[in-house]
Amino acid sequence: MEWIMKNNLIKGIPASPGIAIGKAFLYKENNLEILEKSILSKEEELERLIKGREVAKKQLEEIKENTLQKLGKDKADIFEGHITLLEDEELFSEIDSKISEKKCTAEFALNEAIDEYANMLANLEDAYFKERAGDLRDIGKRWLYGVMNVQVVDLSKLEPETIIVARELNPSDTAQINLENVLAFVTEIGGKTAHSSIMARSLELPAVVGVGTVLENLEDNQILIVDALNGEVIVNPDEETLKTYREKRENFLKEKEELKALKDKEAVSKDGTKVDVWGNIGSPNDLKGIISNGGFGIGLYRTEFLFMEKDSFPTEDEQFEAYKIVAEGLKGYPVTIRTMDIGGDKSLPYMELPQEENPFLGWRAIRVCLDRQEILKTQFRALLRASKYGQIKIMLPMIMDIEEIRKAKAIFENCKNELREEGIEFDEKIMLGIMVETPAVAFRAKYFAKECDFFSIGTNDLTQYTLAVDRGNEKIANLYDTYNPAVLQAIKMLIDGAHEGGIKISMCGEFAGDENAVAILFGMGLDSFSMSGISIPRVKRILMKLDKKECEKLVERILELSTASEIKNEVKEFMKNIA
Amino acid sequence: MEWIMKNNLIKGIPASPGIAIGKAFLYKENNLEILEKSILSKEEELERLIKGREVAKKQLEEIKENTLQKLGKDKADIFEGHITLLEDEELFSEIDSKISEKKCTAEFALNEAIDEYANMLANLEDAYFKERAGDLRDIGKRWLYGVMNVQVVDLSKLEPETIIVARELNPSDTAQINLENVLAFVTEIGGKTAHSSIMARSLELPAVVGVGTVLENLEDNQILIVDALNGEVIVNPDEETLKTYREKRENFLKEKEELKALKDKEAVSKDGTKVDVWGNIGSPNDLKGIISNGGFGIGLYRTEFLFMEKDSFPTEDEQFEAYKIVAEGLKGYPVTIRTMDIGGDKSLPYMELPQEENPFLGWRAIRVCLDRQEILKTQFRALLRASKYGQIKIMLPMIMDIEEIRKAKAIFENCKNELREEGIEFDEKIMLGIMVETPAVAFRAKYFAKECDFFSIGTNDLTQYTLAVDRGNEKIANLYDTYNPAVLQAIKMLIDGAHEGGIKISMCGEFAGDENAVAILFGMGLDSFSMSGISIPRVKRILMKLDKKECEKLVERILELSTASEIKNEVKEFMKNIA
Repeated sequence: MEWIMKNNLIKGIPASPGIAIGKAFLYKENNLEILEKSILSKEEELERLIKGREVAKKQLEEIKENTLQKLGKDKADIFEGHITLLEDEELFSEIDSKISEKKCTAEFALNEAIDEYANMLANLEDAYFKERAGDLRDIGKRWLYGVMNVQVVDLSKLEPETIIVARELNPSDTAQINLENVLAFVTEIGGKTAHSSIMARSLELPAVVGVGTVLENLEDNQILIVDALNGEVIVNPDEETLKTYREKRENFLKEKEELKALKDKEAVSKDGTKVDVWGNIGSPNDLKGIISNGGFGIGLYRTEFLFMEKDSFPTEDEQFEAYKIVAEGLKGYPVTIRTMDIGGDKSLPYMELPQEENPFLGWRAIRVCLDRQEILKTQFRALLRASKYGQIKIMLPMIMDIEEIRKAKAIFENCKNELREEGIEFDEKIMLGIMVETPAVAFRAKYFAKECDFFSIGTNDLTQYTLAVDRGNEKIANLYDTYNPAVLQAIKMLIDGAHEGGIKISMCGEFAGDENAVAILFGMGLDSFSMSGISIPRVKRILMKLDKKECEKLVERILELSTASEIKNEVKEFMKNIA
Repeated sequence: MEWIMKNNLIKGIPASPGIAIGKAFLYKENNLEILEKSILSKEEELERLIKGREVAKKQLEEIKENTLQKLGKDKADIFEGHITLLEDEELFSEIDSKISEKKCTAEFALNEAIDEYANMLANLEDAYFKERAGDLRDIGKRWLYGVMNVQVVDLSKLEPETIIVARELNPSDTAQINLENVLAFVTEIGGKTAHSSIMARSLELPAVVGVGTVLENLEDNQILIVDALNGEVIVNPDEETLKTYREKRENFLKEKEELKALKDKEAVSKDGTKVDVWGNIGSPNDLKGIISNGGFGIGLYRTEFLFMEKDSFPTEDEQFEAYKIVAEGLKGYPVTIRTMDIGGDKSLPYMELPQEENPFLGWRAIRVCLDRQEILKTQFRALLRASKYGQIKIMLPMIMDIEEIRKAKAIFENCKNELREEGIEFDEKIMLGIMVETPAVAFRAKYFAKECDFFSIGTNDLTQYTLAVDRGNEKIANLYDTYNPAVLQAIKMLIDGAHEGGIKISMCGEFAGDENAVAILFGMGLDSFSMSGISIPRVKRILMKLDKKECEKLVERILELSTASEIKNEVKEFMKNIA
């Protein structure tokens, strides 16, 4: 491991799995010199401004077209939004007045206006507007390059076997990446949930992000190994290291192929127990990733993105269209759709939420919907109408009291009656279940099971409330652990209670996709596992190697242990014997 | 009920129980006219300023002395603090410069300076400083009256049978109240936890607070009935109403006497089961209220007030003194002392806590103490040293993981070894237990019981985390309910788990003092109930009327119910038969 000592190892966050070996392309920002200098002709500057905008628009249209081909309408719409922003009349006239008042160059006025607007947006509390600030800077840069007649690096036309290294990658950057030439990317900033990370996973492009300031220490065309399984980048590797990683890469690709072969197989354990393996999605566009990975159903469709990306509540028809696409896309397999889960750390640009001391213990999810019943009613109607086109199951988030289920059911029955009166068909057998996120339901699982049609465990919130640890609080990050015996006990009680109450139970939290947790959950008797598409093949493969009795014994053993680390050791031992 | 229609019923919050019938005394602020007017002689204004301060100081010293006699050193210290504030050199020189610069009167400068300082304090995030702002205005007013030679109303010299009606009552106001003349008070603002409400309960003076703007509609000497059991004030009652309330008052006083007679009796149920009834305290001064109400032990001594009222961490010796007073005061009965419970909604003026998104799910209580072990070590040493003087039990708050107990125990054992080496005696049998506030412990009660010497349930936090409802969030106040079946189930599991693990279990949360909850908790097998002094006699009386078997059956019935309201109805029926 000489290269560690040579100090040419860069550590970051693995954002999209894979291993790549290629040549560095340093994607540096042009350091444009923007001078204010007094101008002679306002008309000339306006002309430059408009010409620059045309250049930018042309580029964005190409990107949009490109994206539509590669990634579908949903992702292409992002760039339609960019074009709208670029042509915003208010923004233009702001720049126009700046040129008149300051008698400055078009680039100076443009740069200042973009900066002011973006700062204003970035300073708003709302995550939605903060993101819009990023979009604005993205189009602003492109426009500026157009005005100054500077060539924008065309990421679609790089040398073969390239690894892009950048400060960060904007949506318009990632959309241009040509998979024939680009093997991986590395960014200085960003985390697993950054836009570029999500795109990388969609494109199955290895990526390591958040590596810190490295651009100034690297050179174009240096050989890099990107180990996006472990979040490491090796610069100028020696022959031995290259050999090791070529092998690792081969193994990774071989395994990937093997896993692809599981696509059409059901997950049946060694003893013959069949388990459902489903996918979690955030929009109809994510369906592809679930189906291509062999998910036979959707265990969680998070509808709040449908609410978050709009400027007002989506209408019944808009919702119906989205749900119908998903229902039809699954061709009869179940699609579990969660009703609006707003509040906590999720807000809507058009709905005022109260300032709360502890938003995770506040007015959120079903609580909002039962106080503002028109929201729930619209969604129920849209879901019922879409239920004709597939197997829709409805899931209510953050339930902690049986009264909440009863209230929601009353609204649901009203909606059914309305539709019957209107002569609109729907699936009369449609199921209404709950997402289990509060300890309350675990303590009384049997009683809740009698009031609804299914359970689905959300492990993030369940862990958070059981342990009283905010999962986003760095100061106590070491305390947040779903392997804590208390959380596992709660899960066990939920599974037992569900079965006692005669209903099925699924898990759609992150724990369901944790390879080490599979044996535990299978041993406890979980009926369905739902996870992100990328985890499906591995979980399937593990399930196919397990024996129910052995797993039940494992569960008995771990529930007698006292701490998460003891449990993890026990599971690790167990998994060693699953080859 | 004609008086309701006559519109002479005022509704507020019952802050200290009792019924009083008397004459209104409207405690109105003098509306001083403070003119800036230019002055001729700075020296003369300075002289007035100093003279005014002397007047205020003299008054405060009288109040302090008075308080010392009536309420003890702890409360008297408040006014020692006021005097220190009054004599603050920086404040004085600020006023001095204002007089010089603006050539204004002493009162104008004083008023402005107090206002600026108080606003500055009030705008700070910290609750401690916000309260100091109130103190500053209190002494500022007194000083101003002194400068302007205006008589301050002397609340110690009112007519007999007076009921004080005020906007609010400051600490220096309540301290002056003479119980021989004053029967009750009513304030426009404030809640149950306001300083004046706490004082009223200490003094056993009926009080209704938060009645809204009423001063302008009342007159001095009007007859008032203060029903501080129901939070109502009746103005100018007719004869019939007076008669009704005289009877109610008699009944209340009679019951109070009856309850006093229970003081020296143990709480033994009809079937002969003995239960401990203990008190909760915040400082050694609260001991009196527990002993006088017949509490045979302390179930919760909240040491954080010891930390909050200082300007730096209390030393080992300072803590030792406080713990020793309590240990000795209880004469061998158990005193359960909770280690520092900072964070969440409690902060220290001298310790920086992180800004957290969800402080109730954050770095608090034992989490702080295990990260900053010197705090816990100092407290353990002080507690061990004090354990020689009585029966001290140590309680760790917010435990959610067995590793936390093990870590705390290791520190505890180190402290014991240190003391042994230093030749300092302590109770070798001292118990170390945990406060149960997280669902985690309820899920795994038996396992936690094996790691410590006792449990004590904190129902506020346990309810909050089980239901995922911030108890302070008004938007969802209707969802917070300890009668929720999930919370009761958690309590049941805790009691069963504790007994299975061979330890005793107490409850020191508000639920333990809830008269309707007594039968449930007794039926579940709770060993000790700990509450505020004022609730002790009533809970004792109920316990003495209960039969264990009947209560066990009640528990079986309610745990089959689905909602809090169903449970409350069932308990209400049950309590009707307990005469």
